[in-house]
Amino acid sequence: MNIRIGIVGYGNLGRGIECAVKQNPDMTLAAVFTRRPPETVKLLDTATPVYTVADIPQFVGKIDVLILCGGSATDLPKQTPAYAKLFHVVDSFDTHARIPEHFAAVDAAATEGGHVAVISCGWDPGMFSLNRLYAGAILPDGHDYTFWGKGVSQGHSDAIRRIEGVVDAKQYTIPRDEALEAVRNGENPTLTARQKHLRECFVVAADDADKARIENEIKTMPNYFADYDTVVHFISQEELDRDHSGIPHGGMVIRSGKTGQNGEHSHLIEYRLKLDSNPEFTSSVLLAAARAAYRLGQKGERGCKTMFDIPPALLSPLSPEELRATLL
Amino acid sequence: MNIRIGIVGYGNLGRGIECAVKQNPDMTLAAVFTRRPPETVKLLDTATPVYTVADIPQFVGKIDVLILCGGSATDLPKQTPAYAKLFHVVDSFDTHARIPEHFAAVDAAATEGGHVAVISCGWDPGMFSLNRLYAGAILPDGHDYTFWGKGVSQGHSDAIRRIEGVVDAKQYTIPRDEALEAVRNGENPTLTARQKHLRECFVVAADDADKARIENEIKTMPNYFADYDTVVHFISQEELDRDHSGIPHGGMVIRSGKTGQNGEHSHLIEYRLKLDSNPEFTSSVLLAAARAAYRLGQKGERGCKTMFDIPPALLSPLSPEELRATLL
Repeated sequence: MNIRIGIVGYGNLGRGIECAVKQNPDMTLAAVFTRRPPETVKLLDTATPVYTVADIPQFVGKIDVLILCGGSATDLPKQTPAYAKLFHVVDSFDTHARIPEHFAAVDAAATEGGHVAVISCGWDPGMFSLNRLYAGAILPDGHDYTFWGKGVSQGHSDAIRRIEGVVDAKQYTIPRDEALEAVRNGENPTLTARQKHLRECFVVAADDADKARIENEIKTMPNYFADYDTVVHFISQEELDRDHSGIPHGGMVIRSGKTGQNGEHSHLIEYRLKLDSNPEFTSSVLLAAARAAYRLGQKGERGCKTMFDIPPALLSPLSPEELRATLL
Repeated sequence: MNIRIGIVGYGNLGRGIECAVKQNPDMTLAAVFTRRPPETVKLLDTATPVYTVADIPQFVGKIDVLILCGGSATDLPKQTPAYAKLFHVVDSFDTHARIPEHFAAVDAAATEGGHVAVISCGWDPGMFSLNRLYAGAILPDGHDYTFWGKGVSQGHSDAIRRIEGVVDAKQYTIPRDEALEAVRNGENPTLTARQKHLRECFVVAADDADKARIENEIKTMPNYFADYDTVVHFISQEELDRDHSGIPHGGMVIRSGKTGQNGEHSHLIEYRLKLDSNPEFTSSVLLAAARAAYRLGQKGERGCKTMFDIPPALLSPLSPEELRATLL
């Protein structure tokens, strides 16, 4: 029988899950849950029923894994523990500093409910984290570097939109070639924020707005832009819609390390993602994690897990024999 | 107490393990076992005792994990099952086609002995295999590509040395830029062996040898060179020793896949290794796997495993709490 998936929250991530389920023949999308009036939510595939989140408890026994597609700021800290009492769950909680407390709350709830919860899936946290772990375990004498981009930062784009006179905006984070090259050469540089990434902004200003003031407000904005070299382009709404409507992202996790009797040999491990759609790729990771959560549950495991705890084979639809014969 | 490591076989891989143990404060090198007369084997650190392989059974209870550094052709098919009855073991068995039968033999022996055996560790099989698994689980609709090099192929170098009139030789496998670029562009090309890799050979010929004949024999050698574009350089022994004494290697595992309602978004996952020393990097992976084997044994697990079966956290010296707080 297929793994029955439920989606909580139908935004970019939820839509990504809906698409990804169709690529995985061992899974079925059983239901989508929303806080909006269900009749106002239009799925890509209209055959899947949409319910209000209040109906979720009625689906115990009808859904195997619930994928929580809410935000990390306020949704997931409440939703993940609450639903881990009722189902196996997967989330993409990405507030790095609060992961330990989220883990503890979810672990208590999942253990109480007898379920498996996999938190902080996606690519960072997620695949990038995994690659930091593997590379660090292999090369203990080394340095880690994470570069993000080229890609759209939603938080930085939002920050620009809040400036007076800004109609719309999109911000790209771009790794700097000089920094990347130094790391790939094994130079183990110490890099400031400014040396690692460039910030490029495409801004639609109101007709009567003072563009010089807007540009200055962007470039001096503390936390978001002040520590970076920032390039600001003013363009029309048509240009923004035409050229900047995608949500690409990606980046690299690199570890540069040494081995040998006196560290005479250098090694470089690089994991690189180039993603046309940040939310769809994240959804694809969440769905693989849902398969693992289901299988861990079948084995009698309980409590909160991260990608660090999941035997990789459990993420794949292939059997252990197929994996060894074809991928090892 | 530290994990007590034993090494069986003291060649390039064994020396790599000896160096790597010093980078891992939770491990101690307890003993090295050799088929040669022990007094003829000089370790980098003379404080570690060297014994003959016949003494291995006497070390039950004194060694936690035995790392088997023999060859895949004849050593490991016998050694890994034999020693898995007595200890947790790790090997780098790399004859891809025979992995299923090796797994079965080792699984039976390890289960009987109540131990954990991790086979086929290293980078390919090993880290490359893991990346094929992860990437395929995330992007089911996609294509896998593995490129090797630039690096020294020991088997191809040996094949050249067997040609009459050849004194010494070194062969490099080099990924072709055009092929790599097509893959990274998401073109999903179908590539022949010739299109993926170039073979470059540095050959020392005997003074009276017919270089044209040697070059022709190399370029037409079935299985090894006939299916590739091969470049042959004749150089002196001094040049070979000076410029080609290292054992570098590396390569890339790339998955190019699509997501979305109609596969409208492309994604690229690339894992790349650039290694100054192939055996030392392999040793470093084996040692991380030894840590995992030991911990799996402590948890009561038994039988044969591969990197596919190992929860990543078990490879790292950091605690689960430290991993979540610092790497997730």
